Amino acid sequence: MTTTDLCVKMVIDRWNGSIDNLNKHLTALSDEQLQNEIAPGKNRGIYLLGHLIAVHDDMLRLMNMGEKMFPELYEPFIKQPDKVVTQIPSVAELRAMWAKQNDMLQAIFAKTTTDEWFSKHTAVSAEEFSKEPHRNKLNIVITRTSHLQYHTGQLVLLN
Amino acid sequence: MTTTDLCVKMVIDRWNGSIDNLNKHLTALSDEQLQNEIAPGKNRGIYLLGHLIAVHDDMLRLMNMGEKMFPELYEPFIKQPDKVVTQIPSVAELRAMWAKQNDMLQAIFAKTTTDEWFSKHTAVSAEEFSKEPHRNKLNIVITRTSHLQYHTGQLVLLN
Repeated sequence: MTTTDLCVKMVIDRWNGSIDNLNKHLTALSDEQLQNEIAPGKNRGIYLLGHLIAVHDDMLRLMNMGEKMFPELYEPFIKQPDKVVTQIPSVAELRAMWAKQNDMLQAIFAKTTTDEWFSKHTAVSAEEFSKEPHRNKLNIVITRTSHLQYHTGQLVLLN
Repeated sequence: MTTTDLCVKMVIDRWNGSIDNLNKHLTALSDEQLQNEIAPGKNRGIYLLGHLIAVHDDMLRLMNMGEKMFPELYEPFIKQPDKVVTQIPSVAELRAMWAKQNDMLQAIFAKTTTDEWFSKHTAVSAEEFSKEPHRNKLNIVITRTSHLQYHTGQLVLLN
């Protein structure tokens, strides 16, 4: 294994480890607990779970790895803050989407080659990418792992 | 720049970006706000700041890049939970330690070569490392960036 392959492995392992860690916490939380605010006046657990699914859904498009699975989550969980859209999926429905999405992302990531990881994502032009080669698909995983950890630190407060 | 160098750059950029992001939030929080709990019955902001400094201090030892700067923070901010040790530094003192530490880590990271990043950290034996080469210094930065983001998601709740 080259150091480049090793570096990709480390990044993907951290993504998978972060998903596993949040899953452990989600399993320990009841649907009722996820309806609570993480702190007085702050986002509810259900909003953060929907937000994570919506953000990860957009990774597919950014990494040119497929279409969004749940485009309907953009409006209530990214565009709008919590409690604005009243018609949202139930916690049980979000848990099912989350599980399905994780399986799919894990399968796609496992078959992505190192060369593909270092190719440009869809939000950067070929010209920009030639000057800024760090704007690649692997970097999407790095930044979204940070985002996932940030909200995991909030979701654990529900317990 | 090789893809390996690029991957190292992406990881270190994410560390520096995460530190910058927390600094932005810390600047916006008063010393009084950092005395508050992030949610009722949970850790105080001052504890999380001390905890981050203590954990980052231990990175120096793990990466064989120097001695701990603030060994006195281990007991109150890692070994013990919040509110057990009553004699702790003030928020102002912790802010100064945090700034000094970030400057030092940034300087050390900037001069670390790619080969050094992929060398083993001090908590793994040479034999284990030969089978598990991902247990290197760069992986310490990857996992500690996750940890930093997790607690940043909590500290922002004080605002």
